[in-house]
Amino acid sequence: MEKISSNVSRTTLTKLVLPPDTNHMGTIFGGTVLSYIDEIAAITAMKHSAEVVVTASIDTVNFLSSARVGDILTLEGVVISTGRTSMEVYVKVECEKYKTRERVLTTTSILTMVAIDEHGQPVPVPGVIPETEEEKNLLQTAKKRKERRLQIAHHEDLN
Amino acid sequence: MEKISSNVSRTTLTKLVLPPDTNHMGTIFGGTVLSYIDEIAAITAMKHSAEVVVTASIDTVNFLSSARVGDILTLEGVVISTGRTSMEVYVKVECEKYKTRERVLTTTSILTMVAIDEHGQPVPVPGVIPETEEEKNLLQTAKKRKERRLQIAHHEDLN
Amino acid sequence: MEKISSNVSRTTLTKLVLPPDTNHMGTIFGGTVLSYIDEIAAITAMKHSAEVVVTASIDTVNFLSSARVGDILTLEGVVISTGRTSMEVYVKVECEKYKTRERVLTTTSILTMVAIDEHGQPVPVPGVIPETEEEKNLLQTAKKRKERRLQIAHHEDLN
Amino acid sequence: MEKISSNVSRTTLTKLVLPPDTNHMGTIFGGTVLSYIDEIAAITAMKHSAEVVVTASIDTVNFLSSARVGDILTLEGVVISTGRTSMEVYVKVECEKYKTRERVLTTTSILTMVAIDEHGQPVPVPGVIPETEEEKNLLQTAKKRKERRLQIAHHEDLN
Amino acid sequence: MEKISSNVSRTTLTKLVLPPDTNHMGTIFGGTVLSYIDEIAAITAMKHSAEVVVTASIDTVNFLSSARVGDILTLEGVVISTGRTSMEVYVKVECEKYKTRERVLTTTSILTMVAIDEHGQPVPVPGVIPETEEEKNLLQTAKKRKERRLQIAHHEDLN
Amino acid sequence: MEKISSNVSRTTLTKLVLPPDTNHMGTIFGGTVLSYIDEIAAITAMKHSAEVVVTASIDTVNFLSSARVGDILTLEGVVISTGRTSMEVYVKVECEKYKTRERVLTTTSILTMVAIDEHGQPVPVPGVIPETEEEKNLLQTAKKRKERRLQIAHHEDLN
Ligand SMILES: CC(C)(COP(=O)(O)OP(=O)(O)OC[C@H]1O[C@@H](n2cnc3c(N)ncnc32)[C@H](O)[C@@H]1OP(=O)(O)O)[C@@H](O)C(=O)NCCC(=O)NCCS
Ligand SMILES: CC(C)(COP(=O)(O)OP(=O)(O)OC[C@H]1O[C@@H](n2cnc3c(N)ncnc32)[C@H](O)[C@@H]1OP(=O)(O)O)[C@@H](O)C(=O)NCCC(=O)NCCS
Ligand SMILES: CC(C)(COP(=O)(O)OP(=O)(O)OC[C@H]1O[C@@H](n2cnc3c(N)ncnc32)[C@H](O)[C@@H]1OP(=O)(O)O)[C@@H](O)C(=O)NCCC(=O)NCCS
Ligand SMILES: CC(C)(COP(=O)(O)OP(=O)(O)OC[C@H]1O[C@@H](n2cnc3c(N)ncnc32)[C@H](O)[C@@H]1OP(=O)(O)O)[C@@H](O)C(=O)NCCC(=O)NCCS
Repeated sequence: MEKISSNVSRTTLTKLVLPPDTNHMGTIFGGTVLSYIDEIAAITAMKHSAEVVVTASIDTVNFLSSARVGDILTLEGVVISTGRTSMEVYVKVECEKYKTRERVLTTTSILTMVAIDEHGQPVPVPGVIPETEEEKNLLQTAKKRKERRLQIAHHEDLN
Repeated sequence: MEKISSNVSRTTLTKLVLPPDTNHMGTIFGGTVLSYIDEIAAITAMKHSAEVVVTASIDTVNFLSSARVGDILTLEGVVISTGRTSMEVYVKVECEKYKTRERVLTTTSILTMVAIDEHGQPVPVPGVIPETEEEKNLLQTAKKRKERRLQIAHHEDLN
Repeated sequence: MEKISSNVSRTTLTKLVLPPDTNHMGTIFGGTVLSYIDEIAAITAMKHSAEVVVTASIDTVNFLSSARVGDILTLEGVVISTGRTSMEVYVKVECEKYKTRERVLTTTSILTMVAIDEHGQPVPVPGVIPETEEEKNLLQTAKKRKERRLQIAHHEDLN
Repeated sequence: MEKISSNVSRTTLTKLVLPPDTNHMGTIFGGTVLSYIDEIAAITAMKHSAEVVVTASIDTVNFLSSARVGDILTLEGVVISTGRTSMEVYVKVECEKYKTRERVLTTTSILTMVAIDEHGQPVPVPGVIPETEEEKNLLQTAKKRKERRLQIAHHEDLN
Repeated sequence: MEKISSNVSRTTLTKLVLPPDTNHMGTIFGGTVLSYIDEIAAITAMKHSAEVVVTASIDTVNFLSSARVGDILTLEGVVISTGRTSMEVYVKVECEKYKTRERVLTTTSILTMVAIDEHGQPVPVPGVIPETEEEKNLLQTAKKRKERRLQIAHHEDLN
Repeated sequence: MEKISSNVSRTTLTKLVLPPDTNHMGTIFGGTVLSYIDEIAAITAMKHSAEVVVTASIDTVNFLSSARVGDILTLEGVVISTGRTSMEVYVKVECEKYKTRERVLTTTSILTMVAIDEHGQPVPVPGVIPETEEEKNLLQTAKKRKERRLQIAHHEDLN
């Protein structure tokens, strides 16, 4: 399979934070942000692979700052590395206060999505050609991340 | 503040997987499971702290097996360790096929929830007294997990 | 078919009351609670019968106390008696104020669920072995409830 | 307070049954129908009383026939009797198959709604003047229904 | 095919405006109203044609007045003219403040719905017999509206 | 107030079409698309004006092609002209079949959004500097569209 530019999968999702997304103090639920992250990761991986995908894993997510009712969330997703049937998707979430136009980083996240056929069996995906410097770096460190995931899995006794 | 038994926070959430929770092949979205995990973690931490809480982080989640429309998901949450204002919540997700009564592990996850006051400022939480063997082990390894999280944060250049 | 312990069907569902569940004064809708009651009754009956189920009836529901945004609802469901194809499910709803840890009864309810096959035809279900004192009493009074339901049906001219 | 014609509160709600309202066999959940019934009862009682209302109770609901994805549900609500602060709302649910234009009764239900002020305290409501024969009958049997509800409450040991 | 009275398709939908339907200032989203308009238009056209329908177009919608949390929206839909496979549906939206019983026009809208078969192909629909004066007028001006739509389509360079 | 580049408001929203967005034949509801169009128009206008906005009107929307469960919708919004307190937002909706990577135009739409203060009163908005050729053309034809809207309003007897 020929490699595909990361521009093919690059996806943007903009969301207005609404009352049902928040607790009774108007702060967004972590779960709402996580489900947005998974949604954009799925679309990003579908665009790259032209297949249906499932989420195999999501790396540690740190919520660096909060979002409140009326804020605008912008999510960007891009495929940064590929295995045989899996894709690493990098998702960046930023929060904009519309009143001040101030924009802060909410979180970044890396998910592994696996392409599947109609019987749920993993199917091969094309490789990725990174376009930005950040993507090139993320592609080069993919192997280290995989090892670290393995190492964490071995220390599973820790949790 | 006096320590509180983990039985105070222990929480169960049962969910029937429905069409809106799944992709068009009937497989549950990772994001749906993540938002259930965050929901039960929030309730668990509110019960422990008697305060409103926000999600500070969620450790790596591996989706070990899938769930489909008609399956029954059971989530169990419990506070396993505490800092000054933060609580580690351990969440276990199992999936039951009602036809065969077969039950498999979907995933486990550890979240850090922080208790906040009405101004969004962190407030102190009581310590936890573990009740089961598993909880006692998880409490003892809390420090190692914190270190590992720090270490990952230092290797942030990896992602 | 062999009888099954009520422990097989016993199900717990915990819910955080959120803005979309309430009117504009922050009080939960009766309809939200009713739909949670039906959801847990369906899961409870699916676990008992290992079949898909439909709701045949729900006995009078009195809302004894209210719940507000930020409260935690706990629902418990258990099969208390069975006919040939129908199951009586007893559901208890309690509401906890997280700030005070105070817990009050919101309502109790008895639903009749019927197991159906893929053509919507009722199918036989196993009997139930009650485990708690309350369940034993509820099983013994099942016949009286059925008669009372019939009597109400005969007085249908009243409504 | 002057009495008000039942035409003031009479309300119609039409719903298309959609996939999220049904189980994985395409049959509507009882809980979905119950939440529609409560929604129309609340609107009906708000129109009668010009106040915010809460649901005090819902009498036994028998689901006489089912509804499936693509069916059209029609709900009609009307205030049929009043106490000092409470209103009895009669709700009738019918299901129409659009292909055959066939229309069947799904269920009828009587709810008691209470008008409340901004502190949640019950407030007086106007009486009702029934308009149809059915409404006149329902008004006359209101007292008997109240007694029956009391009687059921006394037999609470049954459930 | 025989013509059908407009009474067959006439449909009413009543909605309580809830927090999730509004922005953080409590004003309903235009998109929420538009989706209610489309929902009632679809039901109205299904009742007329006894077929599944899709929305081909919606004419300009002007929002004449706003609606807020706690208001009651009433939508009325009726088929006003038909082509071979398409139906014009007229939808009127009114908003009632329950406190004052005051009722104002929110908007009116005309949608073109097309009946389709299971392969998505347009199928013929019966003609309509208007019942009210307003409907008779709307039927007579249907041709002019079609021309105007064409003219707008020709000026598409304008947008 | 200084004019603002259209790049400030330009917004992208990507959506996976899911079962709850569609009828029982898997075709997306017009109302779902309309509510996405309004959502992106609101975010676009908030970014331009740094104020809360409401929808004043939406010009005729023609649904040129359909979208089905599993398709990916991409919406792009941009402010194309401004009045004193109103903004015209141009929204383009495209649908991508992930399997074939084929992309078709679903619809385009022009909405008028008005900036409001906390009392719901219109507030002035900055002018817009168009960036693309298409935007420059749309800005020049804004006056003609306003006239046409007025003309339609005068022919309101047509609907
Ligand atoms: C993901 C899944 C399909 C992998 O199945 P499997 O039998 O392990 O298949 P394979 O061993 O062939 O692995 C397929 C790919 O997934 C990757 N993978 C499997 N588990 C993984 C994990 N926990 N984290 C990251 N990648 C993982 C493998 O490395 C492999 O990648 P590669 O082909 O690029 O080398 C399977 O575990 C699954 O269905 N999980 C549930 C997914 C899901 O439904 N998620 C939603 C919420 S439950
Ligand atoms: C979590 C949050 C309140 C911490 O604020 P802060 O200014 O860092 O406050 P502090 O330094 O006093 O830390 C408070 C506690 O949070 C913990 N914490 C902070 N960041 C953390 C992280 N990424 N992971 C785990 N714990 C974290 C601290 O260790 C501390 O715990 P302790 O009191 O038990 O020692 C803040 O980062 C925040 O608001 N994040 C967004 C939360 C949110 O809204 N989540 C939903 C989705 S965006
Ligand atoms: C419940 C339903 C399947 C019963 O069908 P039926 O043709 O009456 O079938 P049967 O006469 O064989 O009765 C089956 C069982 O249901 C019970 N049942 C029927 N109507 C009942 C009612 N109103 N209340 C309680 N139990 C009832 C019968 O007693 C019988 O129980 P048993 O087998 O344990 O003795 C049918 O009425 C139905 O489909 N109703 C709609 C269910 C539904 O879709 N609910 C969701 C909202 S509409
Ligand atoms: C509406 C649709 C089925 C028409 O298909 P088509 O190939 O143009 O079919 P036809 O030319 O046979 O037209 C069928 C009818 O639709 C009418 N029609 C087509 N486009 C129309 C438009 N933009 N506005 C109003 N009516 C329109 C035609 O006039 C014709 O009506 P008639 O039979 O009464 O004379 C097709 O454009 C479509 O599928 N659009 C998407 C609909 C949809 O999914 N909407 C939801 C949101 S995307």
